[in-house]
Amino acid sequence: MKFAIAGAGAMGCRFAYQLKQSGQEVILIDRWPAHIEAIRQNGLHVDWNGQEVVEQFPIYYPEEVTEQVDVVIVFTKAMQLADMLSAIQPVFGPDTAVVCLLNGLGHELVMKQYVAEENLVMGSTIWSAALDGPGRAVLHGVGSLSLQNFVDTPNARAKTQAIVAALDAAGLHASYSENVKAAIWRKACVNACGNAPTALLECDLGGFFDNPYTEELVSAIAQEFTAVAATQGVEFDPAELTQFIISASLKIREHHASMYQDLIINRRLTEVDYINGAVTRIGEAAGIPTPVNRTITQLVHMKELLLGAQ
Amino acid sequence: MKFAIAGAGAMGCRFAYQLKQSGQEVILIDRWPAHIEAIRQNGLHVDWNGQEVVEQFPIYYPEEVTEQVDVVIVFTKAMQLADMLSAIQPVFGPDTAVVCLLNGLGHELVMKQYVAEENLVMGSTIWSAALDGPGRAVLHGVGSLSLQNFVDTPNARAKTQAIVAALDAAGLHASYSENVKAAIWRKACVNACGNAPTALLECDLGGFFDNPYTEELVSAIAQEFTAVAATQGVEFDPAELTQFIISASLKIREHHASMYQDLIINRRLTEVDYINGAVTRIGEAAGIPTPVNRTITQLVHMKELLLGAQ
Repeated sequence: MKFAIAGAGAMGCRFAYQLKQSGQEVILIDRWPAHIEAIRQNGLHVDWNGQEVVEQFPIYYPEEVTEQVDVVIVFTKAMQLADMLSAIQPVFGPDTAVVCLLNGLGHELVMKQYVAEENLVMGSTIWSAALDGPGRAVLHGVGSLSLQNFVDTPNARAKTQAIVAALDAAGLHASYSENVKAAIWRKACVNACGNAPTALLECDLGGFFDNPYTEELVSAIAQEFTAVAATQGVEFDPAELTQFIISASLKIREHHASMYQDLIINRRLTEVDYINGAVTRIGEAAGIPTPVNRTITQLVHMKELLLGAQ
Repeated sequence: MKFAIAGAGAMGCRFAYQLKQSGQEVILIDRWPAHIEAIRQNGLHVDWNGQEVVEQFPIYYPEEVTEQVDVVIVFTKAMQLADMLSAIQPVFGPDTAVVCLLNGLGHELVMKQYVAEENLVMGSTIWSAALDGPGRAVLHGVGSLSLQNFVDTPNARAKTQAIVAALDAAGLHASYSENVKAAIWRKACVNACGNAPTALLECDLGGFFDNPYTEELVSAIAQEFTAVAATQGVEFDPAELTQFIISASLKIREHHASMYQDLIINRRLTEVDYINGAVTRIGEAAGIPTPVNRTITQLVHMKELLLGAQ
C-alpha cells in the first residue's frame, strides 16, 4: 500500500517509520521548512527505543505533492486540519482512504468537507512520540490504535480492515473497532483532564494528578463529558472514567502533556477548542451545561493571549 | 476613643496612621517580628501620598497585650482571624466593639465565637495600602468604608455610629450603612473575579480585564454570586455587577491583586476559600450550583501546592 502521512510531526514520524520498516511505501507531507530540509538532506533520524537509526523518505510541502496514494493518515494539529486537506487534494483518488487519528472531538465535520464519507476512517491512538529537533524523532514506549470506517458499507469496511492489517503488521497494535466513537470520546476526556489543567498550572502529569484537589476537578470534567457523550450515543461510567484517568496519568507522571508543550514550552496556541471547548460546544447544542470545561477553556485562551502564543 | 488594630499589615497601618493623626489613641497588634522590631525602634515610616512621615505606636504580639480598648479593628488575613481573636481576649471589655473589615464572606461566623454579637460591627472598605518592608507603609489613593452593627439594638447602633464618626474624622470617608451585607457581598464578587484568576494566570488587572475572553468568565462568576447572594437576602443585577467589575478594575490596570501578591510574589497561601470558595460553600448549603467558582478555587489550591505556598 502507498501511504501519505499528512503532518509529519512526532506522531506522523512514528507511523511513517514503522510503516516503512514493515515494507510499505510512505511519503511525508509537512509545512516546517527546517524539518523538511533536514529529512531531505539527512533522512529521518530516529531514537528507536534508545537505538539511533535513519530512514529515508520523500517529503513534500502540501502544495508540492501530486502523486495519488492509497491511504492518507492525517496527523496535523487540529487547527491545521482543514488547511492540510484543502492543500493536498491531488493525492486523493476516488478510493483513497483518509484516516483521522487527531486528538479531540468533531474532526469528522471538517473531514467531510474534503473527503467522501465512504473514504473516511476515524480512529484513536494511545501511541506517543516526540521530536527533539528538525528531522529527529524520539520513539519510545508502546501503544495501540483502533479504527472504524465512518459509514458502514462493505467496501468501506473492507478497506478499513486492510489498513488495520497493514498498521498492525507495522507493529502499531492496530485493531478494528465497532465503536471507535467511544474510544475517541474517552481519549478526549483523558486529554481534557490532563492537558488543559497542566498547561494552566505549568506542571507535569504527576504534579497535577498527585494533587489532593485534583480528583474532584477530574471527576467534574468526566461528569460533563459523560452527560454530553450520552447525547452522541456514547456511554461512560464517570466514576470508572475518573479513576482510569488518574491511574493512567500517574503511570507517566513525568510526562508534559501536549498543551503544556505547545503553550508553556513553545508559546503556541493549544488545541483546547477541540477538547474542553468541543464538549462545551456539543453540550450547548444539546442543552447540557458544561461550566467546568467552559471555564477551563476560557482560562487557557486567556493564558495563550497573555503569553503571546501564536 | 482607644483603638487596637489587630493585624498591622498594610491596611492596619493605614487605619492606625489616620486615626492617630486625628487625635485618637491607637495600639498595634501583629505577629511579624521584623515589622514589630522596626516600629519599636524607628516608629512607623509612612509614604503618605508621596510625602515621607513617621508616627510612633505601641506595638505588641497578640499574647503581650493586656490593656482593654474601646474598639478593635481586625485586619488579619482571613485564615488568621480565629487565632488573633483567641489570643487577644484581654483587650475585650464588656463594651469593646470589634470591627471586621476583612475581605471575603462568612467572617461573622468566626467572630461570633469570640465576640458578643452586641459588640460585633461588620464592614466593607475599598481603601488600599501596601507595605514595602518591615515598618514601612505606602498609603496612596483614596477610598471609603461602610459599617453596620451585627445585631440592631439602640446601644449597638449608637456605638457603631460613634465609630463611624471617629473613622470619618480621621479622613477615612466612613459612613453608616443599613445594608452593609450587600457591600460585603459585592466586594467579595469583585475580589472573586479579579483575585483568583490573576493569581492563576500571573497577570495584573489590566492583563486580565483587557482580555477578550474575560467578560464571559466574569459574567459567569457574577451570576453564581447573584444566585447565592439572593439566598442571603442580598439582591444583585449580574449584568450591572459584571460591567462595574470590569470598568472598576480597568481603572487600576497595573495593580496586582492581593492573591497574586500572596501566591506569586510571596509564595503564601491565598484567601480563596473565603472568596470563591465561600460562595461555593454557601451555595452548596442552599442547593445552588457554583461550578465556576468551585473550579477556580480548586485550581488556586492546586497552584498553592505546586508553588509550595505556606
